[in-house]
Amino acid sequence: MEYRILDLNSVVAYVRSRPEAAALLGLAGPLEAQEISDGNLNPVFRVFETHGPRSVLVKQGLPYLRVAGAAWPLSRERADFEARSLTRQHAAAPGRVPRPYWHDHAMAVNVMEDLRGHAVIRSPLINGTRLENLGETIGAFLAATLYASSDFALGSTAKRRLVTQFQNVELCDLTEALILTEPFGPPPNRNNFLPGLQADLADLQADVELRSAVAALKHRFMTCGQALLHGDLHTGSVMGGAPDARGHSDLRVIDSEFAFFGPMGFDVGLFLANLLLCAVSQAGHAPDPVACQHRRAYLKWQMRTCWTTFEGGFRRQLEGAASPSWREPGFQDDLLRSVLRDASGYAGCELIRRTVGFAHVPDYDSLEPEAARLAAGRQNLSLGRALILGAGGTHTYDDFERRAWTGLDGGEH
Amino acid sequence: MEYRILDLNSVVAYVRSRPEAAALLGLAGPLEAQEISDGNLNPVFRVFETHGPRSVLVKQGLPYLRVAGAAWPLSRERADFEARSLTRQHAAAPGRVPRPYWHDHAMAVNVMEDLRGHAVIRSPLINGTRLENLGETIGAFLAATLYASSDFALGSTAKRRLVTQFQNVELCDLTEALILTEPFGPPPNRNNFLPGLQADLADLQADVELRSAVAALKHRFMTCGQALLHGDLHTGSVMGGAPDARGHSDLRVIDSEFAFFGPMGFDVGLFLANLLLCAVSQAGHAPDPVACQHRRAYLKWQMRTCWTTFEGGFRRQLEGAASPSWREPGFQDDLLRSVLRDASGYAGCELIRRTVGFAHVPDYDSLEPEAARLAAGRQNLSLGRALILGAGGTHTYDDFERRAWTGLDGGEH
Repeated sequence: MEYRILDLNSVVAYVRSRPEAAALLGLAGPLEAQEISDGNLNPVFRVFETHGPRSVLVKQGLPYLRVAGAAWPLSRERADFEARSLTRQHAAAPGRVPRPYWHDHAMAVNVMEDLRGHAVIRSPLINGTRLENLGETIGAFLAATLYASSDFALGSTAKRRLVTQFQNVELCDLTEALILTEPFGPPPNRNNFLPGLQADLADLQADVELRSAVAALKHRFMTCGQALLHGDLHTGSVMGGAPDARGHSDLRVIDSEFAFFGPMGFDVGLFLANLLLCAVSQAGHAPDPVACQHRRAYLKWQMRTCWTTFEGGFRRQLEGAASPSWREPGFQDDLLRSVLRDASGYAGCELIRRTVGFAHVPDYDSLEPEAARLAAGRQNLSLGRALILGAGGTHTYDDFERRAWTGLDGGEH
Repeated sequence: MEYRILDLNSVVAYVRSRPEAAALLGLAGPLEAQEISDGNLNPVFRVFETHGPRSVLVKQGLPYLRVAGAAWPLSRERADFEARSLTRQHAAAPGRVPRPYWHDHAMAVNVMEDLRGHAVIRSPLINGTRLENLGETIGAFLAATLYASSDFALGSTAKRRLVTQFQNVELCDLTEALILTEPFGPPPNRNNFLPGLQADLADLQADVELRSAVAALKHRFMTCGQALLHGDLHTGSVMGGAPDARGHSDLRVIDSEFAFFGPMGFDVGLFLANLLLCAVSQAGHAPDPVACQHRRAYLKWQMRTCWTTFEGGFRRQLEGAASPSWREPGFQDDLLRSVLRDASGYAGCELIRRTVGFAHVPDYDSLEPEAARLAAGRQNLSLGRALILGAGGTHTYDDFERRAWTGLDGGEH
């Protein structure tokens, strides 16, 4: 089949034409489609039974960025990277990603489980929803997926062969530019920030120690292929179902088209940073100082649980590694500490780029009035800088937490 | 053409059959062949004019290890990796490798400049020959070849694409096993050592701090794709012509079939370690203590010159990098220090594995009587351990040199 861009009409016919659909949908009856695109990159459709409960989700890679149009070309191979990484995540952490149904290379389409009733968790978090199992679930997801794709699990030969399937040069280039270069350097760039942050940004960009540390993080991003990362693990890449009585939600990680072999701390750091961005923004989103303090305490605990679950899960798996090298306690200590240091550095970059770079987060951008946005922006920049400069001096999660939460514990409002 | 193993007769007909040969040899007259195999892996032939001065070198990958025979199978793809890396080395450091003439994938053959009159430098070094430009030449070779294949020179996109051409899984696996695993662990292994070193080795293997550090070096070897390495840069991989009046030799780096993307300090460390192995062995090879001291002083200076030339050359190229990130002085300092630390660690592994592992070096193995070999072996093990454990505390070359030369400066005999 030749590539063509699907729309609300053609997506139904497309699904009907595929042999895999028979087991997933009642093809005897009518089907309908609905567009539910949410991310920046790709259109997403739900194809569902008009008279029945079943549905599938159809995601297609366009030859350009969805939100930018033809002015920002992007190859369709991102659908291949998502298919390959989703399959591996599903194997390593079943139930933590949408179940993959089929991948159509020619059409750049991935069809997967439709998480009907689930919602992206970013807005609920901003609005104070407590998902009590968030940190634990994402920590376990990271431990499972990163370990499963590492040299520890695969051996270096199979790992080296797998690396060739994930030469995701286009989206790696985007990450390197938007997260690790442009926010820290002079024009030309796509930076976007409040005029009131001009002086803060100039001060940050004049810090040679910071620029050197970010260059080192960028070099590690380019060279350090420890495991197959999600590559874009922010709170907009996690969906949750309605919480049960204990506050537990069925959480699923989505949108892995950025997947590549990189430093494990990048995934960890991005996720922690997004909880921190939410925490900073609570000064403006929570209805009062007490609520702000409660929400922050919740986010702080989820961040800690995410790290400790990741660390514990990763160590447990290392204990079962085939090679005795990876079972050396000293090696494990050094490895996990270096992942934490990387996480601190990349978290700092994420805080900064979400404030002054090209792509922000609603946690921050929706703050009103502008003075609230400005205050949060200053705090993001200051924490980001501290996490980057302090990465090398981070020995335990306590060190990281102390640095990350400077000025946040009082529930200032 | 289908693959067949060449011999003294068929190699002449093979060369004649190739269109590239006409420009390299006088095909009107008779040609002869001579086998000049030296390395462990591959047979090497010289094909030369019976009545003229010209010749070419023909190197063929066998489906097994040359010195072991069919009992040790090895794929012929090593000839492809050598061809690709030799071409790149020749472009980055012209005149420092044999000129590549042609590569024949089907026959697993590489034909290149015949360095007639050149000899592998290991034996001359053992025998006290001073090649005054050795450190400088190899340091410059490393700076040129490692930089040219790095993210700094290529940008991350081209670099990531290049990595897929160097998935040298078989020879990487060999390095990981023979250098970074077996000497430090229990059987099954292919270790080979003097019975008198049994207790020293047991002591070394019981050092949990050392085992953890070696595991970390192994993990870096597997994950840290900084540049296209030679991968096997010992003094048996360097040929030299007769020294001129100043003691300068035409030095050429050969045998790059181990090439892969790895940590730059691996190449640097292996080379430094091989000069150190020679220095230790001089207690038994030099005719008297004064000669021993002189030879060691020479080797010590060459090691230092190798590092300082590498460091200076690499920094000079970073200054011209397209991305401002790589021109940050702090980044450069941290990067070069981390290469030195890696070099220290890998040098330590090389010292140990050449003493107790599967493949030794003549510097050590040719020492007589056994007591001399035993003394040198103990020194190798002790220095190797110090270089591995001290790697993290290495800030400058002085730190490395102090540690590497413990007990060697007096010219003990």
